Amino acid sequence: MKIAVLPGDGIGPEVTAEAVAVLEALGLPGLTLFTGDVGGAAYHRHGHPLPEETLVMARAADAILFGAVGDPACDALERHLRPEQAILGLRKHLGLFANLRPARVFAGLERLSPLRADIATGLDMLIVRELTGDVYFGAKGQRTNDAGEREGWDAMSYADSEVRRIAHVAFRAAASSGLPLISVDKANVLETSQLWRDVVVEVAAEYPGVTLDHMYVDNAAMQVVSHPERFGVVLTGNLFGDILSDLASAAVGSIGLLPSASLGERETEFGTFGLYEPIHGSAPDIAGQGKANPMATILSAAMMLRHSFGLEAEAVRIETAVAAALADGILGGDLGGSHGTAAIGAAVRERL
Amino acid sequence: MKIAVLPGDGIGPEVTAEAVAVLEALGLPGLTLFTGDVGGAAYHRHGHPLPEETLVMARAADAILFGAVGDPACDALERHLRPEQAILGLRKHLGLFANLRPARVFAGLERLSPLRADIATGLDMLIVRELTGDVYFGAKGQRTNDAGEREGWDAMSYADSEVRRIAHVAFRAAASSGLPLISVDKANVLETSQLWRDVVVEVAAEYPGVTLDHMYVDNAAMQVVSHPERFGVVLTGNLFGDILSDLASAAVGSIGLLPSASLGERETEFGTFGLYEPIHGSAPDIAGQGKANPMATILSAAMMLRHSFGLEAEAVRIETAVAAALADGILGGDLGGSHGTAAIGAAVRERL
Ligand SMILES: CC(C)[C@H](C(=O)O)[C@@H](O)C(=O)O
Ligand SMILES: CC(C)[C@H](C(=O)O)[C@@H](O)C(=O)O
Repeated sequence: MKIAVLPGDGIGPEVTAEAVAVLEALGLPGLTLFTGDVGGAAYHRHGHPLPEETLVMARAADAILFGAVGDPACDALERHLRPEQAILGLRKHLGLFANLRPARVFAGLERLSPLRADIATGLDMLIVRELTGDVYFGAKGQRTNDAGEREGWDAMSYADSEVRRIAHVAFRAAASSGLPLISVDKANVLETSQLWRDVVVEVAAEYPGVTLDHMYVDNAAMQVVSHPERFGVVLTGNLFGDILSDLASAAVGSIGLLPSASLGERETEFGTFGLYEPIHGSAPDIAGQGKANPMATILSAAMMLRHSFGLEAEAVRIETAVAAALADGILGGDLGGSHGTAAIGAAVRERL
Repeated sequence: MKIAVLPGDGIGPEVTAEAVAVLEALGLPGLTLFTGDVGGAAYHRHGHPLPEETLVMARAADAILFGAVGDPACDALERHLRPEQAILGLRKHLGLFANLRPARVFAGLERLSPLRADIATGLDMLIVRELTGDVYFGAKGQRTNDAGEREGWDAMSYADSEVRRIAHVAFRAAASSGLPLISVDKANVLETSQLWRDVVVEVAAEYPGVTLDHMYVDNAAMQVVSHPERFGVVLTGNLFGDILSDLASAAVGSIGLLPSASLGERETEFGTFGLYEPIHGSAPDIAGQGKANPMATILSAAMMLRHSFGLEAEAVRIETAVAAALADGILGGDLGGSHGTAAIGAAVRERL
């Protein structure tokens, strides 16, 4: 079981260190860890946010634990050298097409949500976002148009097989959880969405037990804040998924607690190859101060055990320990508490 | 002062009738009204959601009062025949490039917001959405790709002049209100957004008094629900504007109160040519029952007086009358009250 640890920038190193300590505390046999440079940290050392060595290490691993990228010192660089491009590069090069983002309000932490308490309690959804297609990875550029003007352009598209494989991920999640599935698109305007909808309907025929609805993205954004209880599993494309998953996270109110998994097609001898990262960013303002909440990264490590290593029981052990720590009032500064990175990590390990 | 009234589908005829009655109650000299078919209503009568006659009437007018389009009886039609295409057609044919959508919580109605009261009180923003470009109106279609698969595609682009003219609308709104301006894009991924950002920065140089910030759309969606007080004027493209303006409306919690203006480049002898519509839809479930709240349409008529007819005082008269009616507890069913369409219309007219 080889894990490539890519701590990255800002608070990335601090939070991944605690997640690694939790993994090690489980005493899993055969666990090997490698550490690589990514993001601004990699740029400063190698001149590129995603050096070839890092990519080689990532490919050789069974799973990747990723911290965060983003470094104000790189703001003036050309786009392809900026830290954020590392995560886009990893997704594309490693074929990480399925992004799973659970968003739910933790018991006892409803007060952190910006939503009214009666509405916030209904928020418990899994967003399944396509991650390697859409307008993100189409052709793009700047050109002079026929009228002689500067123009920026990006090609949006989805092919049948791209929609089909992510739809299967979402339908399987809906089938196994018994939750309804809502597919989000903008089929009243986009042909890409029309193809999306057609393929989703075809895939639905293979899952007769799953309730499927379609929603336009503008309506979905409204419903996430006004009627979050309507959502179980949400299936959507790369661009709309970017917006909706951040929106759902904000509605939860504690992004320091939210993990994510980005799964590829490759099956290793243990499970599905994937990259796991907290959904929060590198938070340069509090980096190196021991203040960052490592729970989102620890919960990302739990998702790794579940999806990439088939270790469901161990994943639940971590998740239960985090829930217990929260219930005992072990709260980071982001949750209105005063516990630091190391104290939170230790508290979770004690409760394993 | 020629107004083309396009009531459309569902509750559209009911709510526009009340707005027209309010306009007539003002006793404005020289007001002429024409009524045309649009949406499902037009499809059933003429076989097209935007008949040529309607377009001719719209062009000949100084402003358009639009109800709503959307008719479940048209769900099975091909996309270009569906009612929603009428509004896209009007925007494009009439060059209505600037969509203004104020979103604010009305005094005394904070409880309608799904946001916590302390957060909802900070919500008072004007969204300026570009309305005739972006991926909405680029080339699009279905094709077989090189791998022999079905593929849906849409071309996203913005040209310099398209960004420039909408940026000026937003900067003028920011300059005259003293509010900060936030431009929303996805410049870390999209070249269209990079051009957008470059042009916005250029335009900013002409408005030294306006504070400008840039925000990625995923972050903006988070901030709208967690820190709405950070927004004053929001400048954004067609697709992101569609999502963010509906999100902001949902956060207000009373879409039955929210108006909109879609302005063109053409100046008439009275003001700027524009289309005015409530942001709610055709609500087929309550159509014809006299239950719909006409306030959003009445407030849209006020925006019309302001922007298309230069009648600021009369616009304020209408807005003040609506606020007074609300303060007196004249609430539609959507706001938890029991007043019907006609009663609300009458209550507003009494308070003019
Ligand atoms: C950093 C950025 C390119 C990225 C994205 O848009 O996918 C981020 O917002 C995310 O959601 O992981
Ligand atoms: C009906 C639809 C095409 C339209 C849009 O996406 O612009 C609507 O959502 C709106 O915002 O007016």
